[in-house]
Amino acid sequence: MSTTLSPTPRTRVSRGKNRAVPDRERLHTFLGEALIAHLGVTVGSGEDAHPVVLPTAYGFDLDGPDAGGSLYLHGSVAAGWLARALERDVCVTITELDGLVAARSGFHHSMNYRSAVVIGRARLVEDPEERERALALVVDQMIPGRWETLRPATRKELAATAVLALPLAEASMKARAEGPVDDPDDIEAGTWAGVIPIHRVAGAPVTAEDATEPAPEDVVRRAAGLNLRQGM
Amino acid sequence: MSTTLSPTPRTRVSRGKNRAVPDRERLHTFLGEALIAHLGVTVGSGEDAHPVVLPTAYGFDLDGPDAGGSLYLHGSVAAGWLARALERDVCVTITELDGLVAARSGFHHSMNYRSAVVIGRARLVEDPEERERALALVVDQMIPGRWETLRPATRKELAATAVLALPLAEASMKARAEGPVDDPDDIEAGTWAGVIPIHRVAGAPVTAEDATEPAPEDVVRRAAGLNLRQGM
Repeated sequence: MSTTLSPTPRTRVSRGKNRAVPDRERLHTFLGEALIAHLGVTVGSGEDAHPVVLPTAYGFDLDGPDAGGSLYLHGSVAAGWLARALERDVCVTITELDGLVAARSGFHHSMNYRSAVVIGRARLVEDPEERERALALVVDQMIPGRWETLRPATRKELAATAVLALPLAEASMKARAEGPVDDPDDIEAGTWAGVIPIHRVAGAPVTAEDATEPAPEDVVRRAAGLNLRQGM
Repeated sequence: MSTTLSPTPRTRVSRGKNRAVPDRERLHTFLGEALIAHLGVTVGSGEDAHPVVLPTAYGFDLDGPDAGGSLYLHGSVAAGWLARALERDVCVTITELDGLVAARSGFHHSMNYRSAVVIGRARLVEDPEERERALALVVDQMIPGRWETLRPATRKELAATAVLALPLAEASMKARAEGPVDDPDDIEAGTWAGVIPIHRVAGAPVTAEDATEPAPEDVVRRAAGLNLRQGM
């Protein structure tokens, strides 16, 4: 059973409607597979207002306290973007590139990808339990199962870290996972077209110079299993 | 000989100054290697203003007519973001993920990456020659050398495509390419730490169902040569 995404006018896909993915389960699956988010915050005001887009790690909890579940971001309490991210609505976009679409014309060149856009007002997470759960989710998004193998966070570390939650309610997802869509004349001309698939893969873990132990199981498993690809 | 990046207060790296890359040549090299950009535009006004961040292909021309060179984006003339991208300053962020940094504490977990942030006012490219050069650069960013193997763009295709140029003058770059930075106590405890390297690699080209020719040289070369990784 899948739930339909219910985008608001802000997240409704206005261009490329055939690429919209109206399936909340696919959004959730994708959030579980991707590694990196881009956070857009508005800086300045009036005529000088402009967005700043920053790459960041993320985690998410479908049972989180926000409508639709919670997307978690973290940062230093001293980070400049933090206060701004709380003052106005933000946009978090999570994208994985899956292929380069080599069509028969420049016009029809494209990319295969999955991309989720979440817009909303971020909430500063203050409850200690939710903060720690959120930080665990961010670490485990990188390397599943890792948080529970680590020593507990110290009070000092927790005090230095800000955690933001964004409701997943206002989200949309687009995906392209197909071959080139060419003009009939170009197809008849017999020229080649196709897709170069793109994967994100992991290499063998590189042990730190100051470490002697072999890499733990969670790290080895992550490195062996990471191959982020869907569709062509 | 390298030129120092001269960020304005908007692009100056305020957090993680040790990650700032003050070298314009490294920015240029990175722009040549990456594949996908995230464009942030401001939508709405006053209290309702918020950013929308969209993934997009890009190209660039260091000898382009804009200060510092030109970053090119393209889209459908009917795209909703297009008019908004011209009304106010935009932010384009280009990121490649290079590794998952598995430290000895959750707090020191991090990512290795390269990321460029460009802020400025986009210009609608209207000169026909620059428009065509920009579209060629966007296609060749995906698959180097491909544009010249394709039939010329038609008048109709060009009329349906909007090209934006953003000056590269106001840009900053950050990169992390190192092992975990752990607390002395955690290192002494002898637990493992390290990095899972992440690469973007290409699979063998997948020929379209309606094509019969073998994949051309530029496509084969791209698929064989794509391994986007720098540092650990």
